[in-house]
Amino acid sequence: MPSSLPQQIVQAISSVTGGKKAALHEPRFQGNEWLYLKECLDSTFVSSVGKFVDRFEADLAAYTGARHAVAVVNGTAALHVALLLAGVKPEDEVLVPAATFVATANAVSYCNAIPHFVDSEARTLGIDPRALREYLRDIIVRQGHISINRHTGRTVRALVPMHVFGHPVDMEGLLEIAREFNLVLIEDAAESLGSTWHGKHTGTLGLMGTLSFNGNKTITTGGGGAILTNDTALAKKAKHLTTTAKVPHRWAFEHDEIGYNYRLPNLNAALGCAQLETLPAFLASKRRLHEAYRQAFANIHGVSLLAEPEGASSNYWLQALILDETQADACEAVLTMTNDVGLMTRPLWNLMPHLPPFARCPRAPLPVAESLVRRVINIPSSAFLA
Amino acid sequence: MPSSLPQQIVQAISSVTGGKKAALHEPRFQGNEWLYLKECLDSTFVSSVGKFVDRFEADLAAYTGARHAVAVVNGTAALHVALLLAGVKPEDEVLVPAATFVATANAVSYCNAIPHFVDSEARTLGIDPRALREYLRDIIVRQGHISINRHTGRTVRALVPMHVFGHPVDMEGLLEIAREFNLVLIEDAAESLGSTWHGKHTGTLGLMGTLSFNGNKTITTGGGGAILTNDTALAKKAKHLTTTAKVPHRWAFEHDEIGYNYRLPNLNAALGCAQLETLPAFLASKRRLHEAYRQAFANIHGVSLLAEPEGASSNYWLQALILDETQADACEAVLTMTNDVGLMTRPLWNLMPHLPPFARCPRAPLPVAESLVRRVINIPSSAFLA
Repeated sequence: MPSSLPQQIVQAISSVTGGKKAALHEPRFQGNEWLYLKECLDSTFVSSVGKFVDRFEADLAAYTGARHAVAVVNGTAALHVALLLAGVKPEDEVLVPAATFVATANAVSYCNAIPHFVDSEARTLGIDPRALREYLRDIIVRQGHISINRHTGRTVRALVPMHVFGHPVDMEGLLEIAREFNLVLIEDAAESLGSTWHGKHTGTLGLMGTLSFNGNKTITTGGGGAILTNDTALAKKAKHLTTTAKVPHRWAFEHDEIGYNYRLPNLNAALGCAQLETLPAFLASKRRLHEAYRQAFANIHGVSLLAEPEGASSNYWLQALILDETQADACEAVLTMTNDVGLMTRPLWNLMPHLPPFARCPRAPLPVAESLVRRVINIPSSAFLA
Repeated sequence: MPSSLPQQIVQAISSVTGGKKAALHEPRFQGNEWLYLKECLDSTFVSSVGKFVDRFEADLAAYTGARHAVAVVNGTAALHVALLLAGVKPEDEVLVPAATFVATANAVSYCNAIPHFVDSEARTLGIDPRALREYLRDIIVRQGHISINRHTGRTVRALVPMHVFGHPVDMEGLLEIAREFNLVLIEDAAESLGSTWHGKHTGTLGLMGTLSFNGNKTITTGGGGAILTNDTALAKKAKHLTTTAKVPHRWAFEHDEIGYNYRLPNLNAALGCAQLETLPAFLASKRRLHEAYRQAFANIHGVSLLAEPEGASSNYWLQALILDETQADACEAVLTMTNDVGLMTRPLWNLMPHLPPFARCPRAPLPVAESLVRRVINIPSSAFLA
């Protein structure tokens, strides 16, 4: 009897991991992490001020090609502040993918704005520009420079694509839409450090971009994130807003607006500096892992391994299988069987409009996202796994 | 010619520091910090899950006597979540001291609520219960169980005293007021880890209390904070809200409300576990420093050193001088002269209603706070300074 699709998938993953159990994504600390943490501790500057924060910001800017990087406490905080600086106001609508991690939608909510969910394309798993343009041409009326959702009467202020699993979204199409409808474009690049689109680093193509260094990301600072921007005034404002909006003074406490305690501690930045040094090796290893999976899955029918979109270079943060439509019913069995044998896998996130807090938010038709959510499975993706 | 008051103050501080320059408050890492950080790194669990987070929470609960401690990314986040869990709703008013660090008022704003500023007493530098009771009896009208500010028509929902520089506020008076006006009492104990009021740890007397482990605090985790509570259901909700409100599942992403990415990374918790072990030694040393300053300032006229209130034990986080009313004009000269010679000092925070973002918020008469802000000066306060 030929083995079932879930069995074949378990075998294919096992052939790559060498039969060993495997987490979805583990960090690796084999560079200068230890040295820098010790140096940080010995300096006693472990908190919001210190040389590792400055260095991490400089290193991130140099690596991504952004003029500025502002380190913050996590990717959610980065997105929150980026949206505030983009001028997102209470009751504005912000276009975000229905298929994303909840942080994207939460950050919109923190601004008292309303996430407006749009569809994905199967090629990138990110926002589909063609579907979005058609949708916006239907629902948007212009009042001067402002785009108004004619169904809700609210201003549609910003567009926040997310580079899912590290695969760059079609930025050309989205930048055109942002221009056509006068939307601020902020890239949620939480998952795509190391990914480029036509040679430019993700997160540097819109007005601002945001990164995450959570423990499950390509590099980690324990918890951490950053805002990327080429706009010097915005970078300065980002630093100000994330450090309680305190006006510099030798001793006086003057705060000129509602600020946030979002600064990345120096201790976490020390880890980040070491991790960033090893990023090229991580990326090369993750690309090799993709190739190993590609070969392992080449002859299995009913499932395909997601590859980087044309014109883009992906960091392959999380490897993703996509079951054929006809095999969607096997998804739960695949998740169960793989996790049962210690090969950690997970499905796509529940679509945002399916979550109770966002059930009443506006949404475009979501045929592709609704299909993908039944068929996408992430498989073990750590660097140096294969 | 007798020396001026600023000169005498410089001499007195110098006599305690042994003529050496001194920061306002430096952390000290001479326990197991190094060991635990290495153990954390070697485990690869540096992020939101790990044994040091669990241990830090257990150790904090044991130390403070709170039934539960929930570790978070900083003290501001702790207060934000505590206010949300206390039922603070948009447009509610929350009573906070005019004399506090900006985080207290910011956290209220994050809930879309309005800080309502009240006066201090010179004895504790915290909220004055007698002045507050008199004020509330004037402005509050009751509608069933709800207290309404008759000037604004808004619900006054909560009372957030702050234990300034570690000196416990008069909790007996404030707990009575909370009962009389049906206010939720949340203690901002950001500065008072190690301080007790009639034998009970600050932050454990109200419904919830919040701690901070910023780099300038008595113990530090780089950045960090915690929510203390004796209410098991609230502790569970706090953990849920601070971990993106994710419903536990082997793989599915279900989030049942708007949550936050506020969990303390394991790396920072590792530092916290080691710091907490040395807290008793820090406290003893800071008490010795207070005694040294007391002797140094005993014969200087026009200035007094703030001592712990009767019935309370203070952690003496920051030592504070209070200039006599007649000497208030010397405050700027004292700050300049001390900082110029490398003895770091700072004034009280600008009062909250003096900051642009809070200028239009409601406030009680603030005669004591207005007087204190011209006369309070913090002087070098690190453990093991003297």
